[in-house]
Amino acid sequence: MEASGKPPDPQALAEACARAMWAEDQASQGLGMTIERVAPGEAVLSMAVTERMVNGHKICHGGFIFTLADSAFAFACNSYDQRTVAQHCAVTFLAPARLGEVLRAHAVEVFRGGRSGIYDITVTDGTGAVIAEFRGHSRAIKGLILEGT
Amino acid sequence: MEASGKPPDPQALAEACARAMWAEDQASQGLGMTIERVAPGEAVLSMAVTERMVNGHKICHGGFIFTLADSAFAFACNSYDQRTVAQHCAVTFLAPARLGEVLRAHAVEVFRGGRSGIYDITVTDGTGAVIAEFRGHSRAIKGLILEGT
Amino acid sequence: MEASGKPPDPQALAEACARAMWAEDQASQGLGMTIERVAPGEAVLSMAVTERMVNGHKICHGGFIFTLADSAFAFACNSYDQRTVAQHCAVTFLAPARLGEVLRAHAVEVFRGGRSGIYDITVTDGTGAVIAEFRGHSRAIKGLILEGT
Amino acid sequence: MEASGKPPDPQALAEACARAMWAEDQASQGLGMTIERVAPGEAVLSMAVTERMVNGHKICHGGFIFTLADSAFAFACNSYDQRTVAQHCAVTFLAPARLGEVLRAHAVEVFRGGRSGIYDITVTDGTGAVIAEFRGHSRAIKGLILEGT
Repeated sequence: MEASGKPPDPQALAEACARAMWAEDQASQGLGMTIERVAPGEAVLSMAVTERMVNGHKICHGGFIFTLADSAFAFACNSYDQRTVAQHCAVTFLAPARLGEVLRAHAVEVFRGGRSGIYDITVTDGTGAVIAEFRGHSRAIKGLILEGT
Repeated sequence: MEASGKPPDPQALAEACARAMWAEDQASQGLGMTIERVAPGEAVLSMAVTERMVNGHKICHGGFIFTLADSAFAFACNSYDQRTVAQHCAVTFLAPARLGEVLRAHAVEVFRGGRSGIYDITVTDGTGAVIAEFRGHSRAIKGLILEGT
Repeated sequence: MEASGKPPDPQALAEACARAMWAEDQASQGLGMTIERVAPGEAVLSMAVTERMVNGHKICHGGFIFTLADSAFAFACNSYDQRTVAQHCAVTFLAPARLGEVLRAHAVEVFRGGRSGIYDITVTDGTGAVIAEFRGHSRAIKGLILEGT
Repeated sequence: MEASGKPPDPQALAEACARAMWAEDQASQGLGMTIERVAPGEAVLSMAVTERMVNGHKICHGGFIFTLADSAFAFACNSYDQRTVAQHCAVTFLAPARLGEVLRAHAVEVFRGGRSGIYDITVTDGTGAVIAEFRGHSRAIKGLILEGT
């Protein structure tokens, strides 16, 4: 990203937005998430299930599965350099995630129009089995992601 | 909870279930949650928003708000000594939660019939302002909470 | 409602809004709905399950149960003389509704702030058994209900 | 479908299930719906917005949009000859549907495992513009669709 202006194409813009968001997202960093890929309206994040995320049966608390999906949602819907927030999210838990598993959340855009967006996020485990399906509704607010650039 | 058997009344049963669940719920403990109150079909949990839950603007990641509500949901729907899991959850984010705020999640039972249940959880901040509304769908599975008793 | 202006109190305003909306709501009228009660942020509507709403097993199509709840939602969220539309609705079907049953949908306000609102609608049958739980998210748009007054 | 048994392949089975369900679905028939296509886990239905579905502004009541999507959902999730019911549905209304428009609902399978399924239904108007996004959760119950064959 050059000092002289915005990235010249949608893919570069999405990547610049992701870098800027990531730099200030201590929560996602602190949970050990990794951004594997971003593109306009799309993001793939991964996270290992650690001791602090599980219960006595070594099953991951649903809240951390949601949090991974919610972060993927945030990176996908903020890929256009328009600040966008989560408004409503629904998650269906389909299988347990166990200690040590590396979960992957893939967010894709279903709809974007006006200030509203809908994104679907599928969370899978290391074998590709589906752990959860998440649908997020976003709303664009004032402000840019790359304001200072 | 006496060694001789199950607690004699619904309120004592709810409290015994909460103690048993809490003992193995490292995830909720690790996030600094406190169980303020449980009753049959009901639970109130609180949690302070800490540095590791926020982004660069000191706003709590929605995933941690969800996680608090999801824990309150779990304690409410498991208050009958029947193992019960979250199946589908929807959350609406209504206001930001800031660093240092103590959030409170109050779960109440809307419906319980057969193996299905619906619980509504309202998350408020220290001033009583509503931060999020959460609706959880539960499903009873095999097994008891107080199996060893 | 007097020609000289808006109704003087919230209850009268809610009733005036309901009359104005009902007059142009051919869809709800055509399905045989009845408004039993309105109040600020609240509405109770009823509807009999007729032959054209059922399948070969005499079970009501879920779409008509949704439609009754959605109408109750609309009357509740439009009770302040601010035009308001449904944005997102979720429904859980809990028991079948049979031919001839009179269903009742009771909408109550869970949250209202800024331009957003959340309303919960419970649909019961003639015995009071719960048929469905519906949660609707509304958004206020430009315009009044009682524009001509 | 031959008298001697079940259709020999998944596509023929899906079509046979659709015919059997349609024959007893007076509700969908009565609203003027047409089944355009079915396949395993998939269905496309269309419906014109008629006078009895609109309000005074000629805008379709959201309940009828939901009903079309819900029917497409039902045909998609019942395409395996296992009786399956809608358990939980969420719909987001994205644009108004006007009198005379022919709406099309396309249901696709997102997940199917055990007795649970998730289906996404997109409702578009004649121009292809998206009117609503619907996500349905199904649950298989006892019984076959083609029981008598």
